[in-house]
Amino acid sequence: MADHETDVVIVGAGPVGLFAVFECGMLKIRTHVVDALDFIGGQCAALYPEKPIYDIPGYPRIDAQDLIARLAEQAAPFEPIYHLGARVETVRRHGDKDWRVETAAGTRIDCRAIVIAAGSGAFGPNRPPIPGIEAYEGRSVFYLVRRRDDFRGKRVVIAGGGDSAVDWAVSLAEVAEKVTVIHRRPKFRALPGSVAQMERLAEEGRVELVIPYQLKALEGADGQLSAVVAATLKGETRVIEADVLLPFFGLSMDLGPIADWGLALERELIEVDPATLRTSEPGIYAVGDIASYPGKLKLILCGFHETALAAHDIRKLVYPDEELHWEYSTTKGLPG
Amino acid sequence: MADHETDVVIVGAGPVGLFAVFECGMLKIRTHVVDALDFIGGQCAALYPEKPIYDIPGYPRIDAQDLIARLAEQAAPFEPIYHLGARVETVRRHGDKDWRVETAAGTRIDCRAIVIAAGSGAFGPNRPPIPGIEAYEGRSVFYLVRRRDDFRGKRVVIAGGGDSAVDWAVSLAEVAEKVTVIHRRPKFRALPGSVAQMERLAEEGRVELVIPYQLKALEGADGQLSAVVAATLKGETRVIEADVLLPFFGLSMDLGPIADWGLALERELIEVDPATLRTSEPGIYAVGDIASYPGKLKLILCGFHETALAAHDIRKLVYPDEELHWEYSTTKGLPG
Repeated sequence: MADHETDVVIVGAGPVGLFAVFECGMLKIRTHVVDALDFIGGQCAALYPEKPIYDIPGYPRIDAQDLIARLAEQAAPFEPIYHLGARVETVRRHGDKDWRVETAAGTRIDCRAIVIAAGSGAFGPNRPPIPGIEAYEGRSVFYLVRRRDDFRGKRVVIAGGGDSAVDWAVSLAEVAEKVTVIHRRPKFRALPGSVAQMERLAEEGRVELVIPYQLKALEGADGQLSAVVAATLKGETRVIEADVLLPFFGLSMDLGPIADWGLALERELIEVDPATLRTSEPGIYAVGDIASYPGKLKLILCGFHETALAAHDIRKLVYPDEELHWEYSTTKGLPG
Repeated sequence: MADHETDVVIVGAGPVGLFAVFECGMLKIRTHVVDALDFIGGQCAALYPEKPIYDIPGYPRIDAQDLIARLAEQAAPFEPIYHLGARVETVRRHGDKDWRVETAAGTRIDCRAIVIAAGSGAFGPNRPPIPGIEAYEGRSVFYLVRRRDDFRGKRVVIAGGGDSAVDWAVSLAEVAEKVTVIHRRPKFRALPGSVAQMERLAEEGRVELVIPYQLKALEGADGQLSAVVAATLKGETRVIEADVLLPFFGLSMDLGPIADWGLALERELIEVDPATLRTSEPGIYAVGDIASYPGKLKLILCGFHETALAAHDIRKLVYPDEELHWEYSTTKGLPG
């Protein structure tokens, strides 16, 4: 028995997944939305919430998190059911016409169609290979900074040599008790201006650079860090007292189980028919950055457009006997 | 000699044409925009400026005229040159690589590419076949209502039996001295609720229905109407004193000269390659409602998407030797 029954399961609650709710809703297609993250917005919310986006039509400039808020508001009248913090694990045929989606948590949703709006796949930070680091994650080891103020008065160790490491070293130096940056090379690969700013702070003693060192071990108890151990390639070690470790080793994108669903893939992208956004599997659609077709551009705008085409095609599955009487939104407003 | 030289001429200043300026601008492609109307916004501005649109992503609701204002603002940094009240008359090859666009007013613009964003073509009201009506147009005969208040205290004659006729009869009854509706049939083909409302007003004497009558002649001088003459099929006539006549006989869309440019057409639409929006003529592109490809939906959103694809293809014509180093708008902002 399924836990839920609906018309469409949308995989991915990023901007394109949210707009898919709207486009389906306009055609009276009910939706559930499943996302591995425990909040909506995908990369917009997780990676660059405060960054301005300039190429959403009608918004000369909008911050990513504001765009997500507006899209959620636009989807809301259609009462989508969100399953957040829930990675889709398996997808299989259920009866002649339906699909059964099962999440890692075991929730089963039966549906007529699936829309994959998974961006670059489930994405997550690259975790440094330190035994036992999991025990500290979320308490004193963080892979992203949500609020700078969380680190006020703390002894912060940053590991990494890219933009995130350098930018946060500069920014947190203003609020933290101490900031130490561990990097395995003497040279940082970040914006030269930011590197210069960090090096000035290092000269002033407000940031300590521990280079070329690598992360080696963590000390602490019950998830609370007390020190970070760094080592050179030659085996010299340093113990740095710390309340918090921020490893910034980039993100990995991972199609995850989607790669096992039997869809035609090309370099981690799903091939679709651009007229319908159908994948090679009837009833499964892909939209947004994960979809591939001739001329495809990875713009949020293009994903929006694709949801409209996919919804119109899905409508034929959900209402096989009804002709569409096309009306503009200016004429009909939202369906009652 | 051309009057202007640019990268791209966009034909049509509706929402899609305006966003084409932006998408071109993001790729450092200069644009001129030509429109037969003497204001920007196309149908959004001319036909339904105050109607809310619900299916623009990120706008749960936006009035058409506000959308146009935001799109114009978004296009502005790229300094497009607008040629308004200027219908494109001819398009012809100019040299090996270029096109020359000439407007009805004789302005010549040389360009590398043309983007046709002409919606349903130049559109205009169906004019009633009354000799001499042109002399009254714009002074006492109007085909659309821009501001209801323009008719305060006036004796208004409305001709027609559709939604516009009925809706404006109801609305203007509140401000006009007198409202008369002439319709050639006894039955109106409009929303039943609106018809009922108008009939109530007729019972109350606030609207007079002259049915089944047709427009026959106008009386007046120097463009100022004094009376409208209506007649039955049998030849009975009535003279209705009037300051203003509003004929609402629908709109005709007309591709106009575009039909003569040698492009592959299918039922007044231009066939394009959906990957590039190229027409059958190299260097001429079509986007928005006028473009046709498998799965095409006539949504403003889809036109927006198409401008992005077209701009990327045009970039190869304008900068044939430069590779595109793709960056997201969140990273690069607007080009300097």
